[in-house]
Order: sequence, then structure tokens, then C-alpha cells
Amino acid sequence: MKIIVIGAAGTIGKAVVEQLGARHDVITAGRNSGQYRVRIEDPADVAALFAHTGPVDGVVVAAGDLHFGPLADMTPEQFRLGLDSKLMGQVHVALAAQHRLNDGGSITLTGGIVGQQPIRFGANASTVNRALEGFVVGAAIELPRAQRINLVDPTVLTESLPQYGDYFHGFESADARRVALAYSRSVDGAQTGQVYRVW
Amino acid sequence: MKIIVIGAAGTIGKAVVEQLGARHDVITAGRNSGQYRVRIEDPADVAALFAHTGPVDGVVVAAGDLHFGPLADMTPEQFRLGLDSKLMGQVHVALAAQHRLNDGGSITLTGGIVGQQPIRFGANASTVNRALEGFVVGAAIELPRAQRINLVDPTVLTESLPQYGDYFHGFESADARRVALAYSRSVDGAQTGQVYRVW
Repeated sequence: MKIIVIGAAGTIGKAVVEQLGARHDVITAGRNSGQYRVRIEDPADVAALFAHTGPVDGVVVAAGDLHFGPLADMTPEQFRLGLDSKLMGQVHVALAAQHRLNDGGSITLTGGIVGQQPIRFGANASTVNRALEGFVVGAAIELPRAQRINLVDPTVLTESLPQYGDYFHGFESADARRVALAYSRSVDGAQTGQVYRVW
Repeated sequence: MKIIVIGAAGTIGKAVVEQLGARHDVITAGRNSGQYRVRIEDPADVAALFAHTGPVDGVVVAAGDLHFGPLADMTPEQFRLGLDSKLMGQVHVALAAQHRLNDGGSITLTGGIVGQQPIRFGANASTVNRALEGFVVGAAIELPRAQRINLVDPTVLTESLPQYGDYFHGFESADARRVALAYSRSVDGAQTGQVYRVW
């Protein structure tokens, strides 16, 4: 199958490319690297990506920023960062992908454990990650031609502990290689509207 | 207690005012009516509301718009309607309220059943309602001075069936008077980070 991986240079993205690349034709995309450059925050960029690739059998998104910071100081502008990037960025991809996917093709988006297990400074992340769950269950029942959409919901990455570990004391981490299996379940499987928790 | 109800002229809002008004000092606010006019989509409006009311013991929001329409035609602009109004509008109120609530005061926001039980044309509603769940659980653990935040998650209102019933075949409706009890559980109770389902 022909699969686009957006965010292919990230910690998760690299592991997904390795996992899927073993048996699929993987097209890499990202903000600053990959075969195609795409800022998912910009719908025109997303449209251009699909115009270049033509029809595909799957799209994986492992990209998108969030705001982390104390609720007491949080501004609407900071809160919008996560909505504009991790949420709307992935929604842009899904809305465009439905017109470019082959029959039975899949859309796999990325959430995160903070949607269900809140942490200090994580109100924006809880909101956005839970929103993505809602989008996936809502979109799944309307996609045509057996197209599918799922969410991978990883815990904190082992590789990210040096950077984010202080937010996640007591959480079990998972390495990117293990998280990548969930993307394969989505791409290679037959389910839709699922949230694949890796925790 | 002194409680602001935003969206006080709506079907839910009127029932909440009646329910809470029996024992509390209720201040009504709304886009087009009430003691104070406020567009929750505008943080400056929300700030002005609290500047007028002074410290309060509770804020209820039963306001905010969503986009309903087929996923196949949905544009990013349409999708943003729900993010800007029902989601960010309520987030604006919560971010401002934390600095204006008395100790133990409550913030009560409004979600909806489509967050958990998707319907056709409801991808935006599923996203926004589930996002509000995430915001409430995320914000609850950071609010200071025993402040609380909860979400009321109503099914379709019996009063709204003439307008929206065709989206909700097979769903049990609830009348606004029953839904209003959940707001009282949040305002008069002691829990935080809860999603009160009325379905």
C-alpha cells in the first residue's frame, strides 16, 4: 500500500516509517524535512501535498504542537496554539484525505495520554487530545467507501523523558518502536473509529 | 450564593435559572438578553462581565454554537465555528472565572451526548463536546482555592425535538427541567472534574 507519514522525522514518525516501510510504499512528509514539506496548520499546504502524491491507501499524522503551562496564567492565545496545530492541523489532513484515499484507505491521527490522564500544566493537551478522540469517533461513521479513521493515544515516549519526564512522574513510558505498532494496527487492520491506547 | 448564568435565555438556561433561583442570587447574562450582555467568543466581553459582577460563587455556561453538516463537504472554516464558539467561548469564561471566583466556587460548562454517541453530520459536535470533557478534567486539577469545574453532558432536549429530532432518532430525550438538575449537582455539590451525563 501507498502510505503518507506526516511528521516522519519526529520520534514517533521515524519509528512508524520503519514499521510500515517493511511492507508498504511509504511517502515521508514534514514541516522541515521529508519527500514533501507540509505545514498541517495550513489547509492549502495539505491540499498541495495530496495533489502531489495522488491517491493513497493511508495517511498517518504524527505532528502537531500543544501549549503546556499553568492554567492560572493561560491566555486564550496560548490555548489556541493546540487547537490550531495539533487539533485543526490533523483535522485539515483528515478533511482533505477523505477525497484522496482509495477504497478502504485509512487515516491515523495522534492523540496522547493526557487526554484521559491529566497532568499539571496540561489543560490544553487534555482538551486537544480528547477532542481528537471525538473527531475520530464522529468522522468514522461518515467516511465513504470503507475508508477508516483511528487515533493512536500514546503515553509519554521513553525517548522524550529527558525533555518531558518532569511532567510525567509515575507514568509508564513506551518507546517509539512500541508506539509504532499501534499505527500499524490502524493502517494494516480493518477497524475504524478506534482509539488505540499505548499505555 | 451568587451565581452567574450565561445563556440564561436559552432552553437550558431558563431551566437552570429556575432551578438555582429558588435558593441562590442568580445573575443572568446572554448574547441578546439578560442583566448583562456577553459574547463568550470575545475574551474582552467576558472580562467586562466579571468586572461588572465582581466576585461570584459560581458561573454556569449554557451557550455556544456548533457546526452541523456532512463531513464530506465540511470546510476548516465551518469546523472552526464550534471551536471558536462552544469550545473557546466556554474556555474564555473558565480562564477568566478562576480569578474571580470565591473560594470553593464552581464553573459549570455544557457539553453534549454527541461527544460520546456520534450522529451523522455531527463530527464538529463530537470533537467540541469531547474537548470540553478534556478541558474540565485538565483544569480541575489546577484550580486554586478549592474552586471546582464540571461539565454537564445532556442528551437532546425534549424541547428541541421539533428542530433537531431528525438528527436524534432512537435517542431518549430529556426535558430542560431534568437537565437543570445536573447543573445544580455541580453548583451545590462538592465534586470537581466531573462529567454529569443526563442520558
